Amino acid sequence: MPELRKDPVTGQWVIIRTERPHGPEDFWPVPTPRAPGPCALCEGHEHETPPELLAYRPGGDGRANGPGWRVRVVPNRFPTLRVEGELERRGHGLYDLMNGVGAHEIVIESARHEDVLATLPFAAFEHVVHAFQERMLDLRRDTRFKSVVVFKAVRGAPGPALGHSHSQLLATPTVAPDLGHELTHARSYFEYRERCLFCDILQQEADEGVRIVGESEHVVALVPFAARTPFEIWLLPRRHLPGYEHVTAAERRDLARTLSAVLQRVQALLAGPPIGFVLHSAPFGDHDHSYFHWHLEVTPAVSVPGFDPDGSGFPVNPLLPEDAARFLRGTA
Amino acid sequence: MPELRKDPVTGQWVIIRTERPHGPEDFWPVPTPRAPGPCALCEGHEHETPPELLAYRPGGDGRANGPGWRVRVVPNRFPTLRVEGELERRGHGLYDLMNGVGAHEIVIESARHEDVLATLPFAAFEHVVHAFQERMLDLRRDTRFKSVVVFKAVRGAPGPALGHSHSQLLATPTVAPDLGHELTHARSYFEYRERCLFCDILQQEADEGVRIVGESEHVVALVPFAARTPFEIWLLPRRHLPGYEHVTAAERRDLARTLSAVLQRVQALLAGPPIGFVLHSAPFGDHDHSYFHWHLEVTPAVSVPGFDPDGSGFPVNPLLPEDAARFLRGTA
Repeated sequence: MPELRKDPVTGQWVIIRTERPHGPEDFWPVPTPRAPGPCALCEGHEHETPPELLAYRPGGDGRANGPGWRVRVVPNRFPTLRVEGELERRGHGLYDLMNGVGAHEIVIESARHEDVLATLPFAAFEHVVHAFQERMLDLRRDTRFKSVVVFKAVRGAPGPALGHSHSQLLATPTVAPDLGHELTHARSYFEYRERCLFCDILQQEADEGVRIVGESEHVVALVPFAARTPFEIWLLPRRHLPGYEHVTAAERRDLARTLSAVLQRVQALLAGPPIGFVLHSAPFGDHDHSYFHWHLEVTPAVSVPGFDPDGSGFPVNPLLPEDAARFLRGTA
Repeated sequence: MPELRKDPVTGQWVIIRTERPHGPEDFWPVPTPRAPGPCALCEGHEHETPPELLAYRPGGDGRANGPGWRVRVVPNRFPTLRVEGELERRGHGLYDLMNGVGAHEIVIESARHEDVLATLPFAAFEHVVHAFQERMLDLRRDTRFKSVVVFKAVRGAPGPALGHSHSQLLATPTVAPDLGHELTHARSYFEYRERCLFCDILQQEADEGVRIVGESEHVVALVPFAARTPFEIWLLPRRHLPGYEHVTAAERRDLARTLSAVLQRVQALLAGPPIGFVLHSAPFGDHDHSYFHWHLEVTPAVSVPGFDPDGSGFPVNPLLPEDAARFLRGTA
């Protein structure tokens, strides 16, 4: 019998199909052609990007826009939103609109074209999650921006070929729809219970243990109770903190360590699928978002041969979250 | 400059990118391999499906589960939800779940394997939309079901091959997430303005004209102001009516006529892309849903070469909705 499970964070009911036994071998990595290098994001091609916003050059001479970096942040040459201009919020009859003002940045995760995130050394992860923090601290000073979403786009056919490994920051004048739903539900929960929803989830998950994938001093990785895709994994800090940009160095390091370990496990278990993730962090500004708790949602792009896509609006997951966690822990 | 547009129905902000000129030739149909026939949904293979729930056999001898039908409805052999059993809503710590009870049916849109919906004769469309109504009227008598979503899944790589043309009904014990958001926003609007959101949209769209794709006595087709994909099209009845199952024969015929005309235009303009749609109709039961207004959301599956997928949570549409409507009207 399938189950309907409600995610208390997204507010979404998810259909969990459990009618047949599944092993990791039933899930195939979404095929992604590789775009051959070198490209504009490669070391030695720094002049092909806009001037860098941030770079880590440990042991280097520190000269900007030259080689020797490990992780580098540049403006997106083809930004979804534009950094110049005023918002001009306005109505149009019953509709609402504003100018597409925002910042769109690229976090280049390695100097080498052929690297994939999952197999990068731990130091690279440390730089990447540090870059997220530094850029958010800078972007929040611009009062036009209400929120920053950090993400790595899941790529798959029929999308473009997988290029140089990178993630993205999008600073926006309004909250992304997914984050908005999470804020709504976390606030409702807080108003009703006077406790943080995510802190309570961490407590229940620690008690049950069955959906935990990995743990460290500051960060827990788990498959959510109502996972929308077969190997969805969330990384949550143990300490209640609404905005990611305020993490401590120790928390950041633990996030890097846990993410690296989880992605290595995914890489081995699922034959190296493309990885997507999104960092949900409290919006900026005067509103009280103290009920929120930042976290990273990771989605390996796998397909299930013979499993039809759904179009009803319900996410349909063909794998029991407890089984996914068991496979990912390596105790299957 | 890109624009952020808010859809008053979904409550979602959508990023509309308008920085380069686009023509219909910039949008490619998502490639979909065809599964060769015959299959279990074909005429002459009626014994390979569960017994039919409904079929139209104009001029035939009316014998069930034999050939001679035009449109046929059968239970899904591999249902997402199961029709047997009780819901057993329950909590699990802070989580909520219930048994996956529901009905999952297949509306076979043609007796012939090689047909595609867009090119079927008008009579087929009449049967299809009539089947939606008849099945909804039957399913609503089961008090375990709160809602029926009628949809045609968008298929594309890396999904399964495109098989025999069909749409689906899913009767569910809870409201699908997308429909839930629409109910929330339509209710808020109604409480604030004391008017139906959709009726007001129809009024404004009629006044402006620029997003109208087609019209008939009872049904209007338009590209929504904040379309999420390049050629998203909504079909709305002019008359305020929350639940689709209560349409008149004249409205149903006009829906069939308008849908057929729109799909033929899409077929010609975009080189026959796969078509997805979802019918949003008021839930059943004791709650007052008089503020809602049924409608059909149509999504041609097109891709834009060189246009990156997004992972921020914002829908990003590379085509101005007014341009999409212009192309679809054929006055480009």
